[in-house]
Formats: sequence, C-alpha cells, structure tokens
Amino acid sequence: MKRTMPVEATINHLPAKAATDATALASPDLVLVCVKSADTEQAGRSLAGHLRPETSVLSLQNGVDNAPRLSAVTGHAVIPVVVYVGSEMAGPGHIRHHGGGDLAIGASAASEALAQTLQAAGIRTTISDDIEVTLWSKLVINCAFNALSAVAGISYGPMLEVEGTRDVVTRAVQEAIAVAGACGVSLPEDLIDHILKIPTAMPNQMSSTAQDVARGKPSEIDFLNGYVVRKGAELGVPTPTNRALQVMVKLAERRNEMPQSRKAD
Amino acid sequence: MKRTMPVEATINHLPAKAATDATALASPDLVLVCVKSADTEQAGRSLAGHLRPETSVLSLQNGVDNAPRLSAVTGHAVIPVVVYVGSEMAGPGHIRHHGGGDLAIGASAASEALAQTLQAAGIRTTISDDIEVTLWSKLVINCAFNALSAVAGISYGPMLEVEGTRDVVTRAVQEAIAVAGACGVSLPEDLIDHILKIPTAMPNQMSSTAQDVARGKPSEIDFLNGYVVRKGAELGVPTPTNRALQVMVKLAERRNEMPQSRKAD
Repeated sequence: MKRTMPVEATINHLPAKAATDATALASPDLVLVCVKSADTEQAGRSLAGHLRPETSVLSLQNGVDNAPRLSAVTGHAVIPVVVYVGSEMAGPGHIRHHGGGDLAIGASAASEALAQTLQAAGIRTTISDDIEVTLWSKLVINCAFNALSAVAGISYGPMLEVEGTRDVVTRAVQEAIAVAGACGVSLPEDLIDHILKIPTAMPNQMSSTAQDVARGKPSEIDFLNGYVVRKGAELGVPTPTNRALQVMVKLAERRNEMPQSRKAD
Repeated sequence: MKRTMPVEATINHLPAKAATDATALASPDLVLVCVKSADTEQAGRSLAGHLRPETSVLSLQNGVDNAPRLSAVTGHAVIPVVVYVGSEMAGPGHIRHHGGGDLAIGASAASEALAQTLQAAGIRTTISDDIEVTLWSKLVINCAFNALSAVAGISYGPMLEVEGTRDVVTRAVQEAIAVAGACGVSLPEDLIDHILKIPTAMPNQMSSTAQDVARGKPSEIDFLNGYVVRKGAELGVPTPTNRALQVMVKLAERRNEMPQSRKAD
C-alpha cells in the first residue's frame, strides 16, 4: 500500500552515526562545520589530527569570518558556504524545515565536485563567484531582522507592520553596507529593496537569534550586528543602530541568565 | 501599645473620595493631572466646565509637552511639574513606593503658595527657575533607561553591567541633548555623568515603560524616545539610537497584543 503525505508534513527518519566528539572521525573526505559562530575555534581544535590534505572542510555558518577563523585554528583550507534555509529545532534531534535549503559555496579547486555531490543528494548548490559579497549579503539580512525579531519575540510579518520598523531595518542595513564597503566588499545597491521583501515571503519566520533567546541559549549576535559594530569601530564607520540592536539582544540574554528570569513578564 | 514598623514596610491606608469621571469635580481649587501622556487631551476635555479662573492645574507627567497640550485643550493655564519618584502598582489601588517623591514645579503667580501647600503635606517641592530644562533633563533620563529596561525586562543594576549598555545609553543621551539644544533648551554638560550614576543608586528599579510592557499596557514611548525622534526629524538632528529604542518597545507592545503572545518565550 502506497501512502502519500503532503510535502509540508514529510518526516524523514534518517539513520545517522553520531558522536559528540571528533575522535569518532576517521580521516573524513568531507567535514561540514555547522556550529554557532562562538564555537568555531573549539570545533576547529577538535578536528586536529583528523584532516587529510585532500579533506574538504566547509563552514556552513552565519557571519563572515568563520572560514578564516577555522582555517587559522586547523591550518587547513576552509571553504565558506552560505546557507539559505528556514528551520527550527522542534525538539531533541527534531528539525522542522520551513523552507529553502539552498547553498552557495565559495570557489576552490574542489568546489565543482563538491557542488555535484551536494546536488546529487538533492541539495540545490551554486558556486558563488564572489563569496565575500554572498557572505556579507547574508550578514546584512541577519543584521536587518535577527535582533528585532529576537528581542520582541515576534515573527517577520507582524514585525514589519509596526510603525518605524522599516526605518530601523533600513538604517541597520545602510550601516552594514557602509562597513562592508570599508572592508572592500561592494554590496548590490538594491539589497535594501530585496531585504524589505523578505517578511512578505516569510511572514511567520522567527530569526535564529529569536530562537536562541527563546530557548535561553547564547545567540550569535556578537558575530552579526556585533561584527558590524566592531568592524565599524575599527574602520571609522558609525553604527549606532546596529549597536542598539546588539545590546538589546545581550540584555535579553542577561535576563535569561538571571534567577528571577521572566518574573516581570 | 505603640507599634513600630520599619519605614520600608509602612502601609498607609488613605480614605479618598474617588470617581472615574470628572463630573464629580465641583469647582476644584487644585487639579493634579497624572494620566499617561497619550491620555492628556482626553483628560483635558473631561475638565471642561469644571475649572474656575483661580483653579490651579498641575501636570504631573513624563514628557515635555503635556502642559501646553493640556492648556490647548482646556484653555486654562497649566503648570508643568516634574516628579522624581520610584514606585509601582503592586495591585489594584495598591502603590508600592520605592523611593523619592520630590516635585519640581514651574514658576507662576500661584507656584509659591502651591509649593507651601505641598510641603505642608510632606511632599518636598521646589520651584524650578527653568522648568523647560528640568522637564528635558527628566525626559533625557527616561530616554536613557526606559526602553532598554522595558524591552529586556531587566532592572537598572544588571542592565548597566551588560557590555555595550553604557555606550547605547550615552548615545541616546547625546542625541536627546542635541535635540533639546535645537529646541532652544540648553542642558547641563555633566548630565550624562549624573545619568550613568542612577543605576548604582536604584539598581532594582524597573522603568515605568518596563512596568507598562510587563502589564500589557500601551507605554508612553512615543512621548519619550519617540518625542526626541519626532523633534529631531523636524529640526534635522539625527536620532538613530532613540529610534531603535522606540521601535523595540513598539514591537514588544505589538507582541503583547498578539493572540499567541509570549508563546515563543
């Protein structure tokens, strides 16, 4: 008997050999690093002694500097990858997929073969001809929405309906584009138009930062708006909006750490 | 038998004749207007027909423009008053007093007598020789702390310990001082030093905005950071930090209005 399920309700149970440390890695062909940005160095150190010269190491992370940070720790080339996916942890070992799943990987000698392997596994993959622009474009999107969604605990649709939100989003984006420019990365001029359309396409999405804060986990904010703030300070580009967004998330994290957490709510 | 109670635990039960509309007002000598800034016009309209020429009308409200707004609606002179008090609504009809209680009232022909009456009732009262400076100074304090405390649901002490908070507070204050200057109000140069000491003096205080948001009530944010933003836009003074703080509170209010409110928390 053949059962059909609507795509939205598909639950895939995948057998997987899992371990919580890297000692189980026996000279892998491919390493996909998917940890939060704060854990990049630790993940890199755990790979020591497991990588062969021909191992491909891919960083599938938010932020723009994880690949060089991982490379510095491992002494191994790392290919940056930008992930476009809407998902959430619905429980232990349970990932709920909301949409997307495309990858853009940086150019390298191995990238063509890697893209074919990923495509063959059903993962739409493109090779970015300028991965820095791709990484920064994703970072700017994260700077636009993640903190606002996190601090208010609100999804993108109703968020953008609130008077003034488009203004704050636009300023955060303008600041981040200016910092990218000071870093030598020239972003598309119409990026803000593209970004302001995202909430219409994904009205119910909560940012990953919102999910972290709601779970009481440390967020990646210091590598998102916080990265723009640090680089802006280094390069003399003012970033007051990104600074306010970063600090708001850090305050929400601090509240979560407090014993009387949420009492006032 | 004489009972002594520590001052902190003093509960005063005061007999009061209360009514929920102004028709109960029979030609009063003194009207203390204590409504939230969004309700000023409505409160003013409810006074119509109850004020004699010699009635003193005092606005005991946050924000800097309530007295002229009330005056415009009532056609009556209104004396602005700045209130310095830490308190909360602990329940219906139950006000918990955390500290302070001083008043600064604007100069007028009646102010000296009013100050004596208030002093005789145990309320420390001074007459401000420049009430605009006093009103704006209080507004700037509200702009510094109210939104941050509200959005994160965190009190002033732990709030200021979070890395970056002093930076955001300082920027919000600088922007507000610049807007005040553009409005012709010159604030003391050391205001920021004074403001940054407040959390040490009142570490457990939650802002009135935090209390509003926690209760699911509309806050006064459009008359605090929002006022600085509006006046800044009118007068060409950039206010990105106050804008971000205002919008964050409006997002928190929006979340409170949503049927699935706080589910993500």
